Amino acid sequence: MPSYAEDRAAIEDLMARYLFAMDWNDFDTYADTFTEDGELDYARGVTHGRENIRAEAKRFKEMVGTIYVDHEGKPAKLRHVVTHKAIRVEGDSAWHTGFWFEMANDGPEGALKMGTFGHYDDELVRQGERWFFKRRKIYNEFLKGRESTAVNPVRLMDEAADAAR
Amino acid sequence: MPSYAEDRAAIEDLMARYLFAMDWNDFDTYADTFTEDGELDYARGVTHGRENIRAEAKRFKEMVGTIYVDHEGKPAKLRHVVTHKAIRVEGDSAWHTGFWFEMANDGPEGALKMGTFGHYDDELVRQGERWFFKRRKIYNEFLKGRESTAVNPVRLMDEAADAAR
Amino acid sequence: MPSYAEDRAAIEDLMARYLFAMDWNDFDTYADTFTEDGELDYARGVTHGRENIRAEAKRFKEMVGTIYVDHEGKPAKLRHVVTHKAIRVEGDSAWHTGFWFEMANDGPEGALKMGTFGHYDDELVRQGERWFFKRRKIYNEFLKGRESTAVNPVRLMDEAADAAR
Repeated sequence: MPSYAEDRAAIEDLMARYLFAMDWNDFDTYADTFTEDGELDYARGVTHGRENIRAEAKRFKEMVGTIYVDHEGKPAKLRHVVTHKAIRVEGDSAWHTGFWFEMANDGPEGALKMGTFGHYDDELVRQGERWFFKRRKIYNEFLKGRESTAVNPVRLMDEAADAAR
Repeated sequence: MPSYAEDRAAIEDLMARYLFAMDWNDFDTYADTFTEDGELDYARGVTHGRENIRAEAKRFKEMVGTIYVDHEGKPAKLRHVVTHKAIRVEGDSAWHTGFWFEMANDGPEGALKMGTFGHYDDELVRQGERWFFKRRKIYNEFLKGRESTAVNPVRLMDEAADAAR
Repeated sequence: MPSYAEDRAAIEDLMARYLFAMDWNDFDTYADTFTEDGELDYARGVTHGRENIRAEAKRFKEMVGTIYVDHEGKPAKLRHVVTHKAIRVEGDSAWHTGFWFEMANDGPEGALKMGTFGHYDDELVRQGERWFFKRRKIYNEFLKGRESTAVNPVRLMDEAADAAR
């Protein structure tokens, strides 16, 4: 079994690859971060399966291009960011609680404008030598119904990881 | 002895756990990131010992709830973020210089508003298989008396780590 | 050969050291993150060699001090941040695609104001036991001519890394 550091390094890399793929409209790479039967649970609902997730990401970005517009009316450059991450690994399963926020060039005269923030609640699985999202749930503190609860999400993650030992 | 990567991975995880605990008012988990005789040196002064740090964190968050309020007058969702980190490890001691900032939903109509930024200057110690804060000092560039000096903090950290070799 | 986790940990550390050196005007440490013949390609053009890069960083910060000023007319505290990173390692070569943004205390009454964002496109090399920048290219989505292309930069990085296998 790889060490915690090896698994964490691979998962950190996956988190970055997910966001660059999302923000650059690389839907194949984006969908490929999920398992074949992976689940994405975010603002627009729950989507199952890599194929459906690819299509959903495309629809999401088309929609976003009409909401986030720069001062000239063009689709803004929307950037998602992930910062600190608590990660647990048990064998071929892993759990991730990470803080995210987003920003775009949709401020006055094309200036940077902050958007929203929230956290990722993920379950990952190792298949072969790679890690994939088995389930990603995206909490957003600015969207009704998508807010976090009052309980520390890392505590919930630890309970899930402990139960899988 | 674990490798640098193993220690760094554990310390990265600790940094995330510290912030989620803080922002979700999980004071037990927060206090547990410090050693029994740990020291917290931040905006409101210096606090010694895990028990006192737990109480201080609770007071801090109650105070914060009266200062950071959303447009409806409710306590805002304040989020602390840590990004890039320089970390040194020498045996069972470690040093961390990390950049932080904070933001909340206390802008107009509940929008995201940026708050302040600064850096962490930490000394950590390994006890058993876990890392703990022995001393955390929080610099804040927006608070009189809490600003950093003109010297690169990583250079100061390296001097401390080198001296402990 | 060190593992991916070991190399990634060292490179993460380098990224933090680079930014603290830059933001605290520690030009010697800054220049020392590049190889002797390293290349820096950013807003003000391409600079070759550690000595030239040290001088260029100094000029950049002097210039910046006249553009980013706080509400009292003093040079603002400009902070660069790097968040998620995709990193590839092949032997003694590595590639990094990382998201960055910057902010300063140049808002109204000294408040935090967001600046710009972009991504790093780096080639690194191991010399002895340390990693250095062989080439750093800084994309900035708010500067004419420095914007990214429509292609996912991680895909381009993977092509470069695959070609070096």
